Amino acid sequence: MSTQTAPVDNGVNVEALLGARQAMSEMPEAAQFQWKATSEWVNGAHTRVSVEEFFGAGADQAHVKTFVNDVDHPNVFAAEDNGITPVEYLLVGLAGCLTAGVASVAQNRGIQLRSVTASLSGDMDLAGILGIDPDVRNGFAGVKVSFDIDADASREDIEALVAQSQKRSAVYDALTNPTPVTVEVC
Amino acid sequence: MSTQTAPVDNGVNVEALLGARQAMSEMPEAAQFQWKATSEWVNGAHTRVSVEEFFGAGADQAHVKTFVNDVDHPNVFAAEDNGITPVEYLLVGLAGCLTAGVASVAQNRGIQLRSVTASLSGDMDLAGILGIDPDVRNGFAGVKVSFDIDADASREDIEALVAQSQKRSAVYDALTNPTPVTVEVC
Repeated sequence: MSTQTAPVDNGVNVEALLGARQAMSEMPEAAQFQWKATSEWVNGAHTRVSVEEFFGAGADQAHVKTFVNDVDHPNVFAAEDNGITPVEYLLVGLAGCLTAGVASVAQNRGIQLRSVTASLSGDMDLAGILGIDPDVRNGFAGVKVSFDIDADASREDIEALVAQSQKRSAVYDALTNPTPVTVEVC
Repeated sequence: MSTQTAPVDNGVNVEALLGARQAMSEMPEAAQFQWKATSEWVNGAHTRVSVEEFFGAGADQAHVKTFVNDVDHPNVFAAEDNGITPVEYLLVGLAGCLTAGVASVAQNRGIQLRSVTASLSGDMDLAGILGIDPDVRNGFAGVKVSFDIDADASREDIEALVAQSQKRSAVYDALTNPTPVTVEVC
């Protein structure tokens, strides 16, 4: 980072994150997090999902408020479209995760970001979920993310930011690798 | 379904869905969907993700409005908590997907639902995303969904509803099986 320019500020508190990293290295139980959500069916395909509490850093934690998310199906599925579809929420999470990673890595590397936008798409053959063809999977056949980044850095450095973000992304991992999911009726 | 009781109404238009299934069986290209999102970094870990357009049933489609989702990190990560975290959005999608499936299958089987709630949790060891331990994955170690369902049905029938929903869930598949994700800089 040049001493002639203003300090790089992407709004990421790298010192705090590196401090947390150090603390969690020394006390691995502090790194154990549990994220939570509760949902309530409204009608048809419409469900309301609330997110507020989580556990981490050795204690119960809470968001600043309860975040309520409406999930639904669109009109083309004869539904009311009170919210985006379940699979679109996966794209939301992926975009947020990779972008936060880009901002954090840029801060750590002394790269000032000016804008970071991304276009995401997920291809899906409904022959899966509708039970038309047992050889077609229910989920995405594939997902594509395309970043457009304006920053004080070379194209090579920008590509390296994105690559590092991808390498440490929780949602990228969750989509590209299998996660055990247990579903029970209580 | 008894003729003495009111018709089952879970708010799901099963006739329309079965009609779509039939139409897509005869015209497989109509079942090809593409879900989309666009994101814009705001500051720090805060990204705003917009969802409006998608492609499906052979044409460009749109939601009734642009749905805007704020993604952020909580205060415990020295962030502003302007929205839930990326991984919590995965729980939102999973809850919405499995619950919509329960409602649809119940409607198809003539089972009246009174309430469907679920508690979800996802365990994550931050030693992964913080790069503390290369043997720890970035994503969830595991996810648990617990349904509480009040319906005009036996416990066995309720468990069968949940099992069938799981079998046809796009998000359950996306989490439990690998999805190819391509990330590029344009």
